[in-house]
Amino acid sequence: MKVIKTIPQMRDWSRQQNSNGFSIGFVPTMGYLHEGHLSLIREAKKHAQKIVVSIYVNPTQFAPGEDLDAYPRDFKRDEQLCAAEGVDAVFYPSNEEMYLPQHKTFVITEELATKLCGQSRPTHFRGVTTIVAKLFNIVQPQVAVFGQKDAQQAIIIRRMVEDLNFPVQIITAPIVREADGLAMSSRNKYLSIRERQEAVFINRSLELARKSFSSGIRDLEAIRAQMEALLQKNTSARIDYIEFTDAETLGRPMPQEAPVLLAVAAYFGKTRLIDNTILE
Amino acid sequence: MKVIKTIPQMRDWSRQQNSNGFSIGFVPTMGYLHEGHLSLIREAKKHAQKIVVSIYVNPTQFAPGEDLDAYPRDFKRDEQLCAAEGVDAVFYPSNEEMYLPQHKTFVITEELATKLCGQSRPTHFRGVTTIVAKLFNIVQPQVAVFGQKDAQQAIIIRRMVEDLNFPVQIITAPIVREADGLAMSSRNKYLSIRERQEAVFINRSLELARKSFSSGIRDLEAIRAQMEALLQKNTSARIDYIEFTDAETLGRPMPQEAPVLLAVAAYFGKTRLIDNTILE
Repeated sequence: MKVIKTIPQMRDWSRQQNSNGFSIGFVPTMGYLHEGHLSLIREAKKHAQKIVVSIYVNPTQFAPGEDLDAYPRDFKRDEQLCAAEGVDAVFYPSNEEMYLPQHKTFVITEELATKLCGQSRPTHFRGVTTIVAKLFNIVQPQVAVFGQKDAQQAIIIRRMVEDLNFPVQIITAPIVREADGLAMSSRNKYLSIRERQEAVFINRSLELARKSFSSGIRDLEAIRAQMEALLQKNTSARIDYIEFTDAETLGRPMPQEAPVLLAVAAYFGKTRLIDNTILE
Repeated sequence: MKVIKTIPQMRDWSRQQNSNGFSIGFVPTMGYLHEGHLSLIREAKKHAQKIVVSIYVNPTQFAPGEDLDAYPRDFKRDEQLCAAEGVDAVFYPSNEEMYLPQHKTFVITEELATKLCGQSRPTHFRGVTTIVAKLFNIVQPQVAVFGQKDAQQAIIIRRMVEDLNFPVQIITAPIVREADGLAMSSRNKYLSIRERQEAVFINRSLELARKSFSSGIRDLEAIRAQMEALLQKNTSARIDYIEFTDAETLGRPMPQEAPVLLAVAAYFGKTRLIDNTILE
């Protein structure tokens, strides 16, 4: 497995693979890999012959005061995990390689980026779309895999790829959960023992919603109230949002007609966790 | 010469050329071609083996009330001119092909897009960067040629390409002028006979500035005043701006140290014309 740190070397490697007739599958990550990331790598292998994983904690998707500096990093471990999964190349650039001092260009997705997580993180998604556009232009994959855990991100990336005509097929892979149901996240590392115990109630609140929806309830406000009550009773979490949107457009949910994205964000102490499910 | 109207066909054509070992040179235009455009095509031929010209009046770079509907179009003539220049493919898509109803994604270049022409056309450059990003992803050229007439556009495109890591070499080709010095522009067609006669004074004001600069004058305000006086004496034009910026960054001009972009925009009747020169 090659570890590539510069943009020209990454480009050359990809060009070489393509000219040898190999398709490239790409999994962009911020490192500190867990089973969720590994599931994306395995999914990518189903669709492409050579796999690139990028490991880069992208500063433009963090706002001042967020956890950019604290974000967990362990490149040696990530490298071993990638090698064990049969990854062909890890792209591991520095900040200096990725952002010039004179950088001015951002990719925006208008109101898609202001909903859900965009309310409390107004510059987050423009950072995400910008770095993904950059990485697509550097790695030039035919296929890229994103996790459904970041549901809004997946919707936004699909929109960007279609709108800007990137020649990349986007695949969204299911959420991977711990044994007790907590969605895997590099940020779970921040949780105290008690917060970790409480955090399982995010998924339980989603399960409760799915159960209510399956039983025929279409009053989304009633479902939200049930979820809030469950979280308030069992945790000290501060709910950032519990929202229902159209699962493809992030627009107004139409539970009688189209799949609904139910997304939750909540703070356990200082740690903000997200999770979601599709109601259909 | 092939005329291609759909994105998948354009992609296939480019892929075919590349896999046959041919490099692609690209000249994006809004059609109604003149000698300025043809000079870009000739420049592109020096750098690439196959030439694509796009002809598309991009709606997102026009604001409401601007001249989108009036913008001159003559595809048959453009097609003949391209064929005569040895262009290999003309990409001529419809609006429906280029912008989906659910389009949300734009490429922005922050304050670069708010200076000079961005003051009177605040959404213009995000339309330009967005369509150029789309066209680059569709045509996948190795080289693209832009005209120095749109100096701010050329600077912004270079910034975008570097910031988003597009694998495209950008070439800027010199301004082509009519015999009397007026910079060629599809919008010159809008001018009345009298406006056409007056419009030559834009270039004369730039010549005056170059002469003053060559003679050692570094007081840019004094140069601006000379230009304004010349235009006011000889035309009924309304000056939109006469501005001096750094020729690479659009930042503060440093006439003692670095090339200065001197850019002019003025209205002759309803027609807004732009022109520029480099002082060094």
